[in-house]
Amino acid sequence: MSEYITHDQSGRSVGIVEKQFFTFAHPPNEMPLDSGARLGPITLAYETYGTLNPDCSNVVLVLHALTGDSHAAGYYSKDDDKPGWWENMIGPGKGIDTDHYFVVCSNVLGGCMGSTGPCAVNPQTGMPYGMDFPFVTIGDMVRAQKALMEHLGIDRILCLIGGSMGGMQVLQWCVQYPENVCSAIALATTMRHSALSIAFNEVARQAIAADPNWNQGDYYGKKQPDVGLSVARMIGHITYLSDEAMRRKFGRRLQDKEDFSYQFDVDFQVESYLRHQGAKFVERFDANSFLYITKAADYFDLTRFRRADSPVTVFSASRAKFMVVSFTSDWLYPTYQSREMVQAMKKSGRDVSFCEIEAEWGHDAFLLPNQRLTNLVRGFIDSVYEDTGKQAAL
Amino acid sequence: MSEYITHDQSGRSVGIVEKQFFTFAHPPNEMPLDSGARLGPITLAYETYGTLNPDCSNVVLVLHALTGDSHAAGYYSKDDDKPGWWENMIGPGKGIDTDHYFVVCSNVLGGCMGSTGPCAVNPQTGMPYGMDFPFVTIGDMVRAQKALMEHLGIDRILCLIGGSMGGMQVLQWCVQYPENVCSAIALATTMRHSALSIAFNEVARQAIAADPNWNQGDYYGKKQPDVGLSVARMIGHITYLSDEAMRRKFGRRLQDKEDFSYQFDVDFQVESYLRHQGAKFVERFDANSFLYITKAADYFDLTRFRRADSPVTVFSASRAKFMVVSFTSDWLYPTYQSREMVQAMKKSGRDVSFCEIEAEWGHDAFLLPNQRLTNLVRGFIDSVYEDTGKQAAL
Repeated sequence: MSEYITHDQSGRSVGIVEKQFFTFAHPPNEMPLDSGARLGPITLAYETYGTLNPDCSNVVLVLHALTGDSHAAGYYSKDDDKPGWWENMIGPGKGIDTDHYFVVCSNVLGGCMGSTGPCAVNPQTGMPYGMDFPFVTIGDMVRAQKALMEHLGIDRILCLIGGSMGGMQVLQWCVQYPENVCSAIALATTMRHSALSIAFNEVARQAIAADPNWNQGDYYGKKQPDVGLSVARMIGHITYLSDEAMRRKFGRRLQDKEDFSYQFDVDFQVESYLRHQGAKFVERFDANSFLYITKAADYFDLTRFRRADSPVTVFSASRAKFMVVSFTSDWLYPTYQSREMVQAMKKSGRDVSFCEIEAEWGHDAFLLPNQRLTNLVRGFIDSVYEDTGKQAAL
Repeated sequence: MSEYITHDQSGRSVGIVEKQFFTFAHPPNEMPLDSGARLGPITLAYETYGTLNPDCSNVVLVLHALTGDSHAAGYYSKDDDKPGWWENMIGPGKGIDTDHYFVVCSNVLGGCMGSTGPCAVNPQTGMPYGMDFPFVTIGDMVRAQKALMEHLGIDRILCLIGGSMGGMQVLQWCVQYPENVCSAIALATTMRHSALSIAFNEVARQAIAADPNWNQGDYYGKKQPDVGLSVARMIGHITYLSDEAMRRKFGRRLQDKEDFSYQFDVDFQVESYLRHQGAKFVERFDANSFLYITKAADYFDLTRFRRADSPVTVFSASRAKFMVVSFTSDWLYPTYQSREMVQAMKKSGRDVSFCEIEAEWGHDAFLLPNQRLTNLVRGFIDSVYEDTGKQAAL
């Protein structure tokens, strides 16, 4: 199995993996949410890679971004030609080394890839929740992940890692469950969603709501709001790239033609790319999930956590060692937002290292193979693991 | 009239103005278009401010941006509370001083503010053109403006000025009618539309096409594609601002509430702003015009003009003196694109001055009151006018 070679030739793969499910029901069968509503029972889809140490000291919890899922690495079958979304980072000998660490990744609460979300069946009606699904926050997502950790018998997480909305969960974990986190890596993320990021999400939501097939969220078993969701995804894809990335990747090159069509067809490669991304996305994602999860990201503001007196001391309860990484061409969560985070960690007395990586691929850079990022991640996790080993030996 | 004070207190106004119309018909009643199609007769809506010199040497032609119109300055009546879109720049004693210069501004071909566009009646059918309207380019817009200049008896334009898509027309004029242009000011614009700008336009077009009321462009006298057009406008407004501008203008401030709604209502001020902009826009703009004009901007690539051998010599036929201005926070047409333009002008042997203005308001900065911009514009036009006077005296 460990000899299984990935299709993207990024090194050995964890091989064949299986999606697992954990259903939990807080008494009285529901979990309290930040909004004041209650939700239950809750199922989380998750995957694990590598082997858990007898003392459970080698756990790396991977948190996925907006439209990611629990399938972070490996393949579902021998014939599967598409590995998990972070195959280049997770595997034997990779940045998150499954020869040494036990890696867990779960689909977020509110998602549509096996975890309870708006497309799940509401036990009270026997029908999909749709817009009856309660609002969830990044804090609620983390609360559900904590239940999964308890289910797996894991009390201490060696390292949390995630980019973008995954990074928000990383930060939230550190302040919500400070006792349970040894270290954390926050990639291409922010302490609080900016007006610009909210603006993009709001327009994407409006595009979905504008599709008559959305039907106030009641479309399960009927025509899907594919057109609206596709436009929403296209907006997203613009924000994941950068001016420079688009110039290099597409420039003004025409798609399969010598000259302008003088039609409203696709003329430019960039148009073709966006339409393709939109069309692909609607096959795998639920429009209502998109609405709920973007709203959760928009609500994210760690500096308001438990009505913190000061944004700069929000990390003072945390005991984690931090690494923060930003990317030069990321204009969704630009470097200055990472610096704010680093300042807050330092003022809270935390140990934090920060790196801005020169990368032309915009926000997407955190997902793409990057030797520098791989080395940073591996070095950080290894050093934290060594430190905890020493502490345990004392 | 000259004492008429503008509502935005930006100085004296040109006062009450009137929209005029010019209809022309090239033999055989049609104008040839860059696509190879023919169109006619063509009407242009236009306005003029100030007085034309006897020798017609004081003409400033103002070119408007994507959703602008011919109403660049003044008021339509004493009760009118909204002046033209560039009231802060055009008027007695202002950057474009109507005490000295004769200013012309026309609505672009393809527009919906009085000039012939997709919402105009097709003389062959007696019905609005809709999607039967032929494709127009920036070159076609300029060709129609040239006919208007001839109609007004103007052979030499002292100065062309425009920002964004108006700047594209400025540049196009200089290479398409080099004999007729003394000088040109290009603000916040580009020689060729980038992949990023095309991407935003394409998503906006898809949002319109996704609205069932768009009905393949056949919606006149029926339900309008307001929802799609509104989403398109919201996308545009994000690109006109900047991360910094949004942070200052909105930040994470909530709209009329103390806490999150945990609903899909408006929570944040930035959401309210975008929805408001979308709703306002559909009252004044035609969705089909939006499709045609954005496509014209996407097609714009001056370096391909008459299959130019080299992008850097595209301005070699021009005799104009140039001023190019960019704005630091403009990420739609960033400064590096202005620098490329300036390089091309210099290599073509042109006299060009360039200024990057420190401004936090993003692409919109060129439209906002800015004393530095006003001074630059006034100084440039005055110096060109003096130069041409000296040349005439020789």
